[in-house]
Amino acid sequence: MYFLFIIILGLHSVEGVWPLPQSITSSPERYPLNPQAFYFTYGSQSAAQEGCSVLDEAFKRYFSLIFPDYSSGRFYSEVKFLQWKNESLETFSQLVYQEDFGSYYVNKTEIEDFPRFQFRGILLDTSRHYLPVQAILKTLDAMAFSKFNVFHWHIVDDPSFPYQSRTFPDLSAKGAFHPMTHIYTQLDVRRVISYARMRGIRVLPEFDSPGHTQSWGKGQSDLLTPCYSGSTPSGTFGPVNPILPSTYKFMATLFKEVSSVFPDSYIHLGGDEVNFSCWKSNPDVRAFMLKMGFGADFTKLEAYYMENIVNLTAALNRTSIVWQDVFDYHERIPKDTVLHIWKGVPASYEAELRAITKAGYRVLLAAPWYINHISYGQDWRNYYTVQPLNFSGTEEQKKLVIGGEVCMWGEYVDATNLTPRLWPRASAAAERLWSDEKQTSDVDKAFPRLKDFRCELLRRGIQAEPLFVGHCKHEYQGV
Amino acid sequence: MYFLFIIILGLHSVEGVWPLPQSITSSPERYPLNPQAFYFTYGSQSAAQEGCSVLDEAFKRYFSLIFPDYSSGRFYSEVKFLQWKNESLETFSQLVYQEDFGSYYVNKTEIEDFPRFQFRGILLDTSRHYLPVQAILKTLDAMAFSKFNVFHWHIVDDPSFPYQSRTFPDLSAKGAFHPMTHIYTQLDVRRVISYARMRGIRVLPEFDSPGHTQSWGKGQSDLLTPCYSGSTPSGTFGPVNPILPSTYKFMATLFKEVSSVFPDSYIHLGGDEVNFSCWKSNPDVRAFMLKMGFGADFTKLEAYYMENIVNLTAALNRTSIVWQDVFDYHERIPKDTVLHIWKGVPASYEAELRAITKAGYRVLLAAPWYINHISYGQDWRNYYTVQPLNFSGTEEQKKLVIGGEVCMWGEYVDATNLTPRLWPRASAAAERLWSDEKQTSDVDKAFPRLKDFRCELLRRGIQAEPLFVGHCKHEYQGV
Repeated sequence: MYFLFIIILGLHSVEGVWPLPQSITSSPERYPLNPQAFYFTYGSQSAAQEGCSVLDEAFKRYFSLIFPDYSSGRFYSEVKFLQWKNESLETFSQLVYQEDFGSYYVNKTEIEDFPRFQFRGILLDTSRHYLPVQAILKTLDAMAFSKFNVFHWHIVDDPSFPYQSRTFPDLSAKGAFHPMTHIYTQLDVRRVISYARMRGIRVLPEFDSPGHTQSWGKGQSDLLTPCYSGSTPSGTFGPVNPILPSTYKFMATLFKEVSSVFPDSYIHLGGDEVNFSCWKSNPDVRAFMLKMGFGADFTKLEAYYMENIVNLTAALNRTSIVWQDVFDYHERIPKDTVLHIWKGVPASYEAELRAITKAGYRVLLAAPWYINHISYGQDWRNYYTVQPLNFSGTEEQKKLVIGGEVCMWGEYVDATNLTPRLWPRASAAAERLWSDEKQTSDVDKAFPRLKDFRCELLRRGIQAEPLFVGHCKHEYQGV
Repeated sequence: MYFLFIIILGLHSVEGVWPLPQSITSSPERYPLNPQAFYFTYGSQSAAQEGCSVLDEAFKRYFSLIFPDYSSGRFYSEVKFLQWKNESLETFSQLVYQEDFGSYYVNKTEIEDFPRFQFRGILLDTSRHYLPVQAILKTLDAMAFSKFNVFHWHIVDDPSFPYQSRTFPDLSAKGAFHPMTHIYTQLDVRRVISYARMRGIRVLPEFDSPGHTQSWGKGQSDLLTPCYSGSTPSGTFGPVNPILPSTYKFMATLFKEVSSVFPDSYIHLGGDEVNFSCWKSNPDVRAFMLKMGFGADFTKLEAYYMENIVNLTAALNRTSIVWQDVFDYHERIPKDTVLHIWKGVPASYEAELRAITKAGYRVLLAAPWYINHISYGQDWRNYYTVQPLNFSGTEEQKKLVIGGEVCMWGEYVDATNLTPRLWPRASAAAERLWSDEKQTSDVDKAFPRLKDFRCELLRRGIQAEPLFVGHCKHEYQGV
């Protein structure tokens, strides 16, 4: 958790700032900004100094965002922050406004700011539909505008395996929708990670197993469990085969590659929705169960598998994130594992928050922000009014809620509708995860500010859909 | 109603044709098509001959659609239809397919085709949000691909008046969201009409009154009814004021202009959702009611107003279309007026169909196709399984159902999300309105064909959203 204390020239009106800073005091006193004589510079007390590529690049990017007509101008006048962050630049950019005759202004403003939760993520699912890299980069742009800082890349799943592995190239060659056009090359992945880093966003890769792995089986024989019909194999396959040493050898090699490709300290291991019927049908699996003393309790087999996967990830110096199912089955997993809550909307995720934090695990909340679930009207209000800490528990337990995540599952989403479906609806969750809960408790008061922010997204080229009847000065022209 | 009997070289597979022709017989016998030596020509028996601008332009357009790599090529080989229509070209274009090595083929196919309903419309609402002209043109492109033939332009409403009137320029100058950037000039309107005509699409303008007219009042004083709070005007305004001669003079002048700008033989006059509370509050309106012998029945006042408007439209040689409310109030309206059903989903629109056709009026069905009402999952199935003639009535009554309309109301829709929200969901209704009901009764059978058609829309540059998990050869790249 970090703190920013910023004194800047700034504030058009509080309507213009999203998500809302922890404290903001504005004055009617305003100053003209001359793009021809404006520059960002490092404060003498700032830890970051010239040569910091992330901030040097951010200075350029935000100059263009603030002065779209002057993107090639030179910078003369000076704005200093006590501590630089991508997020403080974002706030500043929202404070500058242009009047009808073209002049730029900023009002005198004092801001103290820091995020309420350290983990503010968006999940994209590139398995159910392939998302071109450009669509991912556009999402990263928009994420930075709402101060999201984690891109959870649910990169593979049952329908397709678009990640082109160096070690196991057959996984995408045989498991992607198309082996050449519907894959992410190593270069693509590096580009996404670098683009995200420049915007203060971490990339959290998810390789979900043992379920959700149908596409893995196409390029890796003997990985999935053969299902049986009576005493003979039916020709279909189930979850990853947890009884073979070759499975763990494969997984160790794959995750070794993954941990070298994705620098983030977390890896998401999935572990959700394992269907036991195939395991049950397989005589070798049943024999293994007896040998291990699991009886007929297949959750024990799943636990056995997940423990192995979590441990091999730990050996790679990575911290695991797993879906809540893993906790629900009471597996013995390292205490630093993060549990990810996805079930139980609208009410019962609170019980899960209580139980997981009581057991001492850190937790991420996704359940109320399944943004792929569309409905008619202003459903952003539902995302906004979530109270992540509204469960009975000690202060220590509350501290274990490290953040939340907006999930855009891909059953009905690809590059054609991703952006308008995500924005500005996800921005509602962004404010919940960034801002003070009491200051943002009135959803009606938030509405005009979010409306303004959505117009700002349009001005910045993000195809964000409207919240209700009305218009923006700069409408979307990219039809 | 017209009939096409076409014998063409054609059929990749029936999967590729949407909406389904009345009869289609294909053979595995296939013919290569050489784009360098391919041309369309007029059959000797065709009523249309060279110099017909609509077809000459369509030949060019469809050549590019069929052979995207050869759009500047010259045409040598010959395809003749017994009777040319934009729609038959569309069917043909869906039959041509390209193999992996680039060659084009078409299988031998016999098609007999005609539309089941003559009126197959899409409503766009440019008042709740302004839609740039480009977004309308793109919709017209996509409409032609699904054989829609009426663009119902709900051009003005309460929130804004973007139509720039020659006679009353203040209507848009004061009633549009912005007087310069959020309007449709006369040139814009002509462009839309001409673009639509080239694609076999009529443009039906709607100027809805007496309700839904808040934006009109800004640029035309004394048009709306002053509402009263007790014995004094409250400062707010209600529906159009039906008691003043100046109202009808204004409307006659406006509709005279409208009928000169929009060449279609129909004009949509609205007439829906009139709120009586303002009329009731106004002492002059109440006095008029007494004088006219309407008592306290404000539906009679509404009827009086609508009769006047319908009659002045008839005097301009235009046929009126009005929303069902006008019938529900039993107004005396000319027998050639078309009633437009919008209420009563899911069941009671059938009662309305029965009642209106029993009274001898023609009817348009929109109620089950309010496509702005989104929900999670494959709601296109609901649009597909509508049975427009499934009401108890005589054969004569059924013939009075002239078609249907997909309505995209604009509360939550603008150029950012219009296209993916409209396509391919609207295509489901398109097949219902074009094809034989018995041949298209199985929604599961339709699914793979619609999926293919959606990919074809993508290939043609329409940002059509996915129906379910999967991929297209050519994904949307316009992010």
